[in-house]
Amino acid sequence: MVVNVGLIGVGAIGKVHIERMQNRISGAQVVAVCDLPKKEAETKQIAKEIGAEYFSDGFELIKSDKVDAVVITTNDPAHPQYTLAAIEANKHVFCEKPMAVDPADCIKVMDAEMKHGKRLVQVGFMRAFDRGYDEVKAELESHKYGDPLLLHCTHRNPSVGTEYDTPMAVENTAVHEMFTLPWLLGENFISAKVTLPRKQTRNTHSNLHDPQMIYLETESGVLVDLEVFVNCQWGYDINCKVVCETGEISLLDPHYHEVKTANQDSVPISEDWSDRFIQAYDSEFQSWTNSVIADKTSGPSAWDGYCASVSTAAASKSRETGKTESINLIDCPDPEFYGVTKIKKTV
Amino acid sequence: MVVNVGLIGVGAIGKVHIERMQNRISGAQVVAVCDLPKKEAETKQIAKEIGAEYFSDGFELIKSDKVDAVVITTNDPAHPQYTLAAIEANKHVFCEKPMAVDPADCIKVMDAEMKHGKRLVQVGFMRAFDRGYDEVKAELESHKYGDPLLLHCTHRNPSVGTEYDTPMAVENTAVHEMFTLPWLLGENFISAKVTLPRKQTRNTHSNLHDPQMIYLETESGVLVDLEVFVNCQWGYDINCKVVCETGEISLLDPHYHEVKTANQDSVPISEDWSDRFIQAYDSEFQSWTNSVIADKTSGPSAWDGYCASVSTAAASKSRETGKTESINLIDCPDPEFYGVTKIKKTV
Amino acid sequence: MVVNVGLIGVGAIGKVHIERMQNRISGAQVVAVCDLPKKEAETKQIAKEIGAEYFSDGFELIKSDKVDAVVITTNDPAHPQYTLAAIEANKHVFCEKPMAVDPADCIKVMDAEMKHGKRLVQVGFMRAFDRGYDEVKAELESHKYGDPLLLHCTHRNPSVGTEYDTPMAVENTAVHEMFTLPWLLGENFISAKVTLPRKQTRNTHSNLHDPQMIYLETESGVLVDLEVFVNCQWGYDINCKVVCETGEISLLDPHYHEVKTANQDSVPISEDWSDRFIQAYDSEFQSWTNSVIADKTSGPSAWDGYCASVSTAAASKSRETGKTESINLIDCPDPEFYGVTKIKKTV
Amino acid sequence: MVVNVGLIGVGAIGKVHIERMQNRISGAQVVAVCDLPKKEAETKQIAKEIGAEYFSDGFELIKSDKVDAVVITTNDPAHPQYTLAAIEANKHVFCEKPMAVDPADCIKVMDAEMKHGKRLVQVGFMRAFDRGYDEVKAELESHKYGDPLLLHCTHRNPSVGTEYDTPMAVENTAVHEMFTLPWLLGENFISAKVTLPRKQTRNTHSNLHDPQMIYLETESGVLVDLEVFVNCQWGYDINCKVVCETGEISLLDPHYHEVKTANQDSVPISEDWSDRFIQAYDSEFQSWTNSVIADKTSGPSAWDGYCASVSTAAASKSRETGKTESINLIDCPDPEFYGVTKIKKTV
Repeated sequence: MVVNVGLIGVGAIGKVHIERMQNRISGAQVVAVCDLPKKEAETKQIAKEIGAEYFSDGFELIKSDKVDAVVITTNDPAHPQYTLAAIEANKHVFCEKPMAVDPADCIKVMDAEMKHGKRLVQVGFMRAFDRGYDEVKAELESHKYGDPLLLHCTHRNPSVGTEYDTPMAVENTAVHEMFTLPWLLGENFISAKVTLPRKQTRNTHSNLHDPQMIYLETESGVLVDLEVFVNCQWGYDINCKVVCETGEISLLDPHYHEVKTANQDSVPISEDWSDRFIQAYDSEFQSWTNSVIADKTSGPSAWDGYCASVSTAAASKSRETGKTESINLIDCPDPEFYGVTKIKKTV
Repeated sequence: MVVNVGLIGVGAIGKVHIERMQNRISGAQVVAVCDLPKKEAETKQIAKEIGAEYFSDGFELIKSDKVDAVVITTNDPAHPQYTLAAIEANKHVFCEKPMAVDPADCIKVMDAEMKHGKRLVQVGFMRAFDRGYDEVKAELESHKYGDPLLLHCTHRNPSVGTEYDTPMAVENTAVHEMFTLPWLLGENFISAKVTLPRKQTRNTHSNLHDPQMIYLETESGVLVDLEVFVNCQWGYDINCKVVCETGEISLLDPHYHEVKTANQDSVPISEDWSDRFIQAYDSEFQSWTNSVIADKTSGPSAWDGYCASVSTAAASKSRETGKTESINLIDCPDPEFYGVTKIKKTV
Repeated sequence: MVVNVGLIGVGAIGKVHIERMQNRISGAQVVAVCDLPKKEAETKQIAKEIGAEYFSDGFELIKSDKVDAVVITTNDPAHPQYTLAAIEANKHVFCEKPMAVDPADCIKVMDAEMKHGKRLVQVGFMRAFDRGYDEVKAELESHKYGDPLLLHCTHRNPSVGTEYDTPMAVENTAVHEMFTLPWLLGENFISAKVTLPRKQTRNTHSNLHDPQMIYLETESGVLVDLEVFVNCQWGYDINCKVVCETGEISLLDPHYHEVKTANQDSVPISEDWSDRFIQAYDSEFQSWTNSVIADKTSGPSAWDGYCASVSTAAASKSRETGKTESINLIDCPDPEFYGVTKIKKTV
Repeated sequence: MVVNVGLIGVGAIGKVHIERMQNRISGAQVVAVCDLPKKEAETKQIAKEIGAEYFSDGFELIKSDKVDAVVITTNDPAHPQYTLAAIEANKHVFCEKPMAVDPADCIKVMDAEMKHGKRLVQVGFMRAFDRGYDEVKAELESHKYGDPLLLHCTHRNPSVGTEYDTPMAVENTAVHEMFTLPWLLGENFISAKVTLPRKQTRNTHSNLHDPQMIYLETESGVLVDLEVFVNCQWGYDINCKVVCETGEISLLDPHYHEVKTANQDSVPISEDWSDRFIQAYDSEFQSWTNSVIADKTSGPSAWDGYCASVSTAAASKSRETGKTESINLIDCPDPEFYGVTKIKKTV
């Protein structure tokens, strides 16, 4: 069986996912695409190239009988409305992160999904499908090294444009860790603090404070320091070290070859996210496609999207207040429905 | 469009490729399977599980209208007959390595394929699709480090069973390097020498001399030392270091996480080929599927299969004679047809 | 010429330095030793073994004509009195860190030394003589990677005894970074904050909160996070990563061999400080001996000892108040005398 | 007690050892120096700078009452005569490698030394004092990984001058491995083969065939491949991998810092032997000085020098004959006297 996918939003990430589904994912094909009127010509061109139908209205695309499942890659504010429409239409939906900027919208999605009676929503946190993070999580869950105590993380990009401003360091960059680290540890954050160092890189611009340090604490008391440095110049450099009671587990950037030359022994550093996480994105979409075929959506859920949204909002607030801000989550409305589990801690 | 694949030989590798095409490859589905009468029950069971048709005869499967393209994963001696039948039936065929044990059979396949007028045959040398080897090849072709001068390689397996005997070290194990290294360097081997060290591991058995050292020379004079050690115990450990005039390029085993514990800082070593080369196998089949859809087979060719077969035969002979044996290839009957190119050497 | 050294305090570190000067340092020999009356027998035995004179009183040892220069390895509180006596006696003196627990005592030492007119005091911060830190400092001073922005550091020990309590994490462990990091950056700290995580290792004891996080800021605004974890079990693990504008410079634990076995590729982690820093200690004493012979003491000065003492005191206070505490240094009384320089920052 | 050293030969290595003994070795001082008449001015200048006596004749220096022990750093052919003279004068002598070009001269030295009744000769094979090789040897002797089966080694220099010709690759470069590898394995070589690849680097000159491959076999049947590449351009790059039955032990070039910049994560490669082996040279001289003081010379012996000399001669012969040449050693005249031991092999 092949899943006929309708995709809304043919921007950068949308195009990448179309190419992915057409060429590397088993069981999925894009049959319908949609974007804003101002992008009609481009969107029609894409539709033509892949033999898909063009829609000028996302809600029409969602309702179309041709569409089995929906992929939302629009700008962030439009995410909840289409997700809710897909649930309404009883169709599986993959929504790029963040699920919603406002946590209240995430709750609306959960309510609709629970009312509907089974999971339909997967949020695009692809690191849950990265082999490196999976191996780190497996080591943690083996509990061979005792409980985690501290995390030291970095999220670095080589450079960003002038449209990228100070809030985006938390909302568009650190949001990945806001999902990934709780998923890794099996527990949520309870507080966030953002510090803007007096000393900045000269490679930033007037609207962006770069780098930024984010400090988080989890329910059990694990402390996290996360460096966000989006103009580091040297590459896309994601690090995550989990300090446990008897061992330190570190995420590695996989290297495939090494060169010795000119008195240096070196390995390449990824140039961008598409290179570093290509395997994760492919696995994410293959997993989603398979789960749609099996009518059993898994992977990052609306609840995960909600938790990340609340944590992100608290960090943003801290950047403004300069204080540590608490992260107050509602109780998970249905832990079983959302498969909320924790790493079992030895007491 | 979906390629309807008929697969002959549902042994270990056959099962892996079925699982791969059914779950991870875009555009391919297995619609027919076949194996020897003695495996009828098992083969029918597999056919049932994936909704494919069972054939008791490989030639019938190849001729079937249901079958667009053929995958041959039988035992080695049966490879040429089915490959020739597929060409006869004008169908694209993927044949696991080795293409043939006897170089003469490879020539028959080339003759049939050239007579037919376009490439139909891809041989299962998957390392050409491994990201590591691709990066090494790209560095070589950039010619940043001058010409290659020496190669130091190892091909290590944790252990093998008693059915694995002394000749298999060359014919089933080193055969991968017999293709991969010429592909990497863009030139063929001219001689091979196999040395059986007096000192063996105690982890081998009476029918297997382990380890073995294989020494090869290429047309331009590059010297290769290749260690084959199939009971090394510590893992599946493939290494390839290319010593160039101004740099050394090394293939790396990619690592995704690292652990510090008990006074050791360590990364895992792959346990077997399916773990080390899973990406390469997936890429190989996706590439093959896409090339079948485009009716343009690429990848390792019958000519590559022939060259590897001759090199392997020379190494086997050297093991018996104890002498350096020359590798005498026929001229490539149609370099353009087989896309035979070389790294341009600066003179 | 040979420097005749008098050493006060034959405890663990004292014995190590005696062994060092007798066996590995050119130009130094221990001719006099002293310790508390309760250790008279042991001290006399040591004196006998190395052919040195026993003194029951440190001040007498300092005054003795036999003694050219003094090494102080007593318990911390006794450091200033003997340092002052050595200056009084116009003798070069090597005082183990910390120079004094109370910054006021450091000022007394500086006053005496400056009054005397030339440097006589070297404080035992050996990391300034570690090849790794030297290479990191050289990279920073090359300014190839722009200004430093952030430091991520860890100071880990495999385990400590029950006599090691919560304050010692700052006063005996982090004190090394209190000197080393300003020395590395060429600027002092202005504030310190210590956080005691709710989540501790079960490998600590009732009098020790372990691990602890220490956050520091420098004059120019560089932010430092320092993990102190003294029961990490896995080894003596010192890390220092300097995040600059266009590059990250990391201190490495040197490794001399690597082993692949049992599906792991691993390098050993140092078991303790004496293994990790043996080269630094040897270089420190050779450098001190040479400077005494040349009558030109260099290396970590009384001013450096003062700065480290003030930073350490602020961190200790923060642990009690839970607040960020400022680090208020007097102006360096004589920058030229104390060779106080900074890394020139590009503006 | 201080050893008064007389040094013959103030060339490059001689100067380095003088500087070493004057500044970094405990218990040694150079009191006499000598070189050829044509270098009288330079030698007298050196003598003046370090306050040593100048000798125009090496034999006079050896006989001088001022001289307790002798260091020979002359050109190779002069090594045996001065070594014999030192034995005659009953003085400990450190002779730089090779002990003698002609194995027969090594036998003369052994005869004289044994007749004298105790060891007086240490040969300058400094790798026995390198921490890396020591760690590899300790792993081997622990026998944790079973017996050694294969060795893969490289000896690379960034570049050499036109005075360095083809034979020197074996006689001045590989000679280090001719001592080090048997010392590591605890057994001698029985044959050597040198192969001159058709393909050479363009960075060599008309009198030097570069690189060269040397193949060796030990008594127990361990096979060694050794690459000698003295114009590799990228640095001084010494590698030694010991393949054992259940593990591979690799020598590492120690790294003290790492830099991430411009899409590369790199560590520096040593520029030359003085940087890579400075610790080994210092340890070698401290060990020798201590052994002289204790009147118990240890370290590489005349027997070791003899074995290396025979192996080197066989390799040189192989380069000319193109054949594998056997290495025929006399029985060790006095295994106890020369402390000849082997790694105990499990049977």
